[in-house]
Amino acid sequence: MQIAILLYDRFTTLDAVGPYETLSRLPEAEAVFVAERTGVHRNDIGSLGLAADATLSEVTAPDILVVPGGPGQLAQMADGPLHEWIRAVDAGTTWTTSVCTGSLILGAAGLLKGRRATSHWLALDQLPALGAEPTGERVVFDGKYVTAAGVSSGIDMGLTLAGRIAGDAVAQTIQLGIEYDPQPPYDAGAPDKAPAEITAMLRERSRFLLAGEE
Amino acid sequence: MQIAILLYDRFTTLDAVGPYETLSRLPEAEAVFVAERTGVHRNDIGSLGLAADATLSEVTAPDILVVPGGPGQLAQMADGPLHEWIRAVDAGTTWTTSVCTGSLILGAAGLLKGRRATSHWLALDQLPALGAEPTGERVVFDGKYVTAAGVSSGIDMGLTLAGRIAGDAVAQTIQLGIEYDPQPPYDAGAPDKAPAEITAMLRERSRFLLAGEE
Repeated sequence: MQIAILLYDRFTTLDAVGPYETLSRLPEAEAVFVAERTGVHRNDIGSLGLAADATLSEVTAPDILVVPGGPGQLAQMADGPLHEWIRAVDAGTTWTTSVCTGSLILGAAGLLKGRRATSHWLALDQLPALGAEPTGERVVFDGKYVTAAGVSSGIDMGLTLAGRIAGDAVAQTIQLGIEYDPQPPYDAGAPDKAPAEITAMLRERSRFLLAGEE
Repeated sequence: MQIAILLYDRFTTLDAVGPYETLSRLPEAEAVFVAERTGVHRNDIGSLGLAADATLSEVTAPDILVVPGGPGQLAQMADGPLHEWIRAVDAGTTWTTSVCTGSLILGAAGLLKGRRATSHWLALDQLPALGAEPTGERVVFDGKYVTAAGVSSGIDMGLTLAGRIAGDAVAQTIQLGIEYDPQPPYDAGAPDKAPAEITAMLRERSRFLLAGEE
């Protein structure tokens, strides 16, 4: 079972690492980081570099596709070789997945038309223009398309998908292996749970981000 | 504020990325991945490569030190240049931290003597030989030493530490930014919560791992 995780410049690290750390622990799984060029790709902050080990043309038949999000997603929305590759491998995947604003890339490639999907809470309102129906759920299954909410939600998606693929016992073994017994010090991880002024501030900031004026 | 995250071959990815994704979002923070040599370091599974951008000698005064764990920890237990560097930078840190079996490296370097600490649940029983007192808590503060439990616990540690450093509002902003509203599909993330046979199986497997017979 091959898991292809897409990289591009200015991806958000945990978007990619959450599904990686869970799904790559499945029996017989082999994960590969794939990008338009091989070599180190810098994340959204720039201080982390992750290696892509294969080019798009070298990965033609993954069983699972994972598309992370991040500010660099903005540069991946135009039709071209990346979208062609996404559509080509999607034709053969068992599961096509995204985390955070990765769903906007899947949507721009035309894969989410008429489907329920999610994204980072700040990007949910961009889904309808791509033909998708946004939901407030953290992990959304619609057929073989699995989209997860912002950044850290890829861990929950990975475990949920691991259970669908290999059964509850295997997924629970992965969960215990990574000691995923979350104990956040605050209950502020969703826009309706965080203090209202914090949610408002991030909404305001995101306007600049989305306009590319960071 | 400089955050130095140690890399070595066969580290566990999320051990490093959990604190990175939270702490690097602090205002004025600059994270740097540091190792005995620069360049890509392969993780425990081998399919992920993370770049170290600085050598030990180039990072002399970090404010925060983060030591991840992973199977490669076994090769980092002998006294030598790495332990000397850890002790040298620890003399100037505001916080010295670890995730998972990274605490065994801190302990081997002599930093946890007489301190309360934690580690991956499968490695807790190795702490006393290093002079530390194991606890069952997920994130343990003892003075400036902060140790976290297995793999995914580094996210909780990062947010908790972010709150101590910059206040609750900043930490909550980070939590909402990474949409950390965990919804694991199972409640199996701790040895006393997972089905007994799964806990027993991982204990059995870890005997081989710890003997280096993986």
